[in-house]
Amino acid sequence: MSTAIPDLPVLAADDSMLSRKFGREVANYFSGSPLNRVSFLRTDHAFLNAAFAHPSTSFLLLDNYSPLAKDTSTLTYVSKEDIAVLTGLDPFKKTEEEQIKSFNSAITQPIVLFLGLDERKTGFEYREYKGNPYFAVDVTPKGSIEEKAKSVIEAVKAKHGVSFTPGARLLTLNAPEAAIYAQARALLDWNARNPFCGGCGERTMSINAGTKRVCPSTDLAGIPEGGEPKKRADCPTRHGVSNLCFPRTDPTVIMAIVSSDGTKLLLGRGKRYPPGWYSTLAGFLEPGESIEEAVRRETWEESGVHVGRVIIHRQALPNGETINLGNDPELEDAKWYTFDEVREAMGMSTVGFGDAVPEGEQRKLRIPPQTAIANRLMAAVVEGYLGPPPKI
Amino acid sequence: MSTAIPDLPVLAADDSMLSRKFGREVANYFSGSPLNRVSFLRTDHAFLNAAFAHPSTSFLLLDNYSPLAKDTSTLTYVSKEDIAVLTGLDPFKKTEEEQIKSFNSAITQPIVLFLGLDERKTGFEYREYKGNPYFAVDVTPKGSIEEKAKSVIEAVKAKHGVSFTPGARLLTLNAPEAAIYAQARALLDWNARNPFCGGCGERTMSINAGTKRVCPSTDLAGIPEGGEPKKRADCPTRHGVSNLCFPRTDPTVIMAIVSSDGTKLLLGRGKRYPPGWYSTLAGFLEPGESIEEAVRRETWEESGVHVGRVIIHRQALPNGETINLGNDPELEDAKWYTFDEVREAMGMSTVGFGDAVPEGEQRKLRIPPQTAIANRLMAAVVEGYLGPPPKI
Ligand SMILES: [Zn+2]
Ligand SMILES: [Zn+2]
Repeated sequence: MSTAIPDLPVLAADDSMLSRKFGREVANYFSGSPLNRVSFLRTDHAFLNAAFAHPSTSFLLLDNYSPLAKDTSTLTYVSKEDIAVLTGLDPFKKTEEEQIKSFNSAITQPIVLFLGLDERKTGFEYREYKGNPYFAVDVTPKGSIEEKAKSVIEAVKAKHGVSFTPGARLLTLNAPEAAIYAQARALLDWNARNPFCGGCGERTMSINAGTKRVCPSTDLAGIPEGGEPKKRADCPTRHGVSNLCFPRTDPTVIMAIVSSDGTKLLLGRGKRYPPGWYSTLAGFLEPGESIEEAVRRETWEESGVHVGRVIIHRQALPNGETINLGNDPELEDAKWYTFDEVREAMGMSTVGFGDAVPEGEQRKLRIPPQTAIANRLMAAVVEGYLGPPPKI
Repeated sequence: MSTAIPDLPVLAADDSMLSRKFGREVANYFSGSPLNRVSFLRTDHAFLNAAFAHPSTSFLLLDNYSPLAKDTSTLTYVSKEDIAVLTGLDPFKKTEEEQIKSFNSAITQPIVLFLGLDERKTGFEYREYKGNPYFAVDVTPKGSIEEKAKSVIEAVKAKHGVSFTPGARLLTLNAPEAAIYAQARALLDWNARNPFCGGCGERTMSINAGTKRVCPSTDLAGIPEGGEPKKRADCPTRHGVSNLCFPRTDPTVIMAIVSSDGTKLLLGRGKRYPPGWYSTLAGFLEPGESIEEAVRRETWEESGVHVGRVIIHRQALPNGETINLGNDPELEDAKWYTFDEVREAMGMSTVGFGDAVPEGEQRKLRIPPQTAIANRLMAAVVEGYLGPPPKI
């Protein structure tokens, strides 16, 4: 759901003059976090140590990307005592240099991710920074920590009377918590997907409180207590090829293409959608491509439609509106829908996105829910939210 | 340099009404490619085979990311005969499935990257697609192809009387070629940096004409001719964890922060800049963060300045303009410069970005050249290119 930016101190002076001139600033669902990431403190083990130990600190647990949640609209946070069996009580005790020196590829590392400070509360202070700390912990049972993770999972479920809820069912999360969950999930997912180094093939380790992975130059696996660690072969990630060490953030484009007469929207359906479901076109940005170029390329490749100027909403070229699905096999169908048809579909939210549509209603257009960017884009056009689309 | 979108057929009907309403669309230097990527044809080996073999096809060669170039403003393209010793005359003869089955991790694979079709010329046709094909080939000498690559390098230098020019010296490339070079360099760089699988640590291979890397399930390394390939351990990238297989495109933000009275720009200097050089602030977008949030976070982390609404250009909050370099150790300095000072710096381009400034001129502000997004952003503000900045 598109929401106003949450009530952050730095935004208190946001002013209506700018809003009148440029339109209201919106944040999509899954962004708009209330936390200050203070990213420069992720290397400061004294800060992390103090934040981890503080009684005002909240821990969000994810089991295989499903967060601990009270219900489908509220996350559940636990305290350090609930996870100590997995993480210990001071996982940030060592400096990062010491952690890297004691790397042992045979031991599975529990990922403790620092999310940020909630500055609306001031339970915790470090130098000039104030706010309640938030961490996320991956409790997926695996490797050498399988049994410990399982015991944490059972204990928190019993103690809090809650369960781990799959992310797909959490589109009703309140917006600030959706953003916190998105940050946690993206980073824990990235850590879990990248146990090995793309540069040399050896195992990597997580540092910077879950936001960086490095390829240590030594390994204690199989070395007796007190012995010298094994030296590993040289790796390009230790000499300036550092982008592999940081999380991926793959930029995508999602576009509402308007016909040149300003009356119709171009929607497409993937091959696996149940009958009746359509959505806006979308795709990944490629290297060396601007946002506008990606919008034009993806629209043409998927639907054959030629798009001219790209802004926030945008018209198709009058001579380029013919749909051609023959380029790219990605879509099963693409169609122009009138604004009225889209408005009607906006009112029909009795089934979840992708769910089968009841008998007798299958001829009607179905679109993604309000929490989807696709839905908000369509609303921006058909509700005139960004002003009436200009006619060519 | 900010340039108008090149003269592409699909844009022929772009209209001044939209430009009047939304402003002229610009493409930054290194985007705005004249090529149609026809990305859906990258898996079509019959297409790739025909395009590779066609006499109208151009090959751009990169040696350790330096392209073959006539001078610092024009790239040099060669023909398939010039590279056949490295790539063979039909590197796309096999289907992708066959290529993956014959994977041999002991053999270095030359990367032949399909860039797209130049539809302004119609030398080549395949189904309904017309245009001269462009490929890029990585000729960096390494692994089992070291000697072949060296011989290609020496032969093309002698034949064409040109050399491989480091990318940093190519900021004078004409804009369409800069975009072609950016695409080639980004993809060849990504292939070279990712020889191993992040999911299982085994060697990967390049498919989709240089735009995807997969982790084959078998390996012929060390197997006698005609023998059964060795089965490799299971890998998560073969079961839906596919994002590792695609190029990284790390989104960044670059921002011109304007003081609340509309008279000054916030600029910073990195620790390694020569004396006098300043530029706009910039940083990477993090997972679960909107563009606007990244602009506010990076500005505050690097300079301590609080930013409110983010649009294309944007004012600092009146009560948040105090600079604080104490959060993040990234910058050596950040300062507010008057529009007049920035305008004066725009006129001084006698030394290259990062070059030492002549004696006696070191007190003056130096900024990046016109080809830099940073320069174009500053121009957008101080030249009123996007309209006068609103005063709070
Ligand atoms: Zn490595
Ligand atoms: Zn693998």
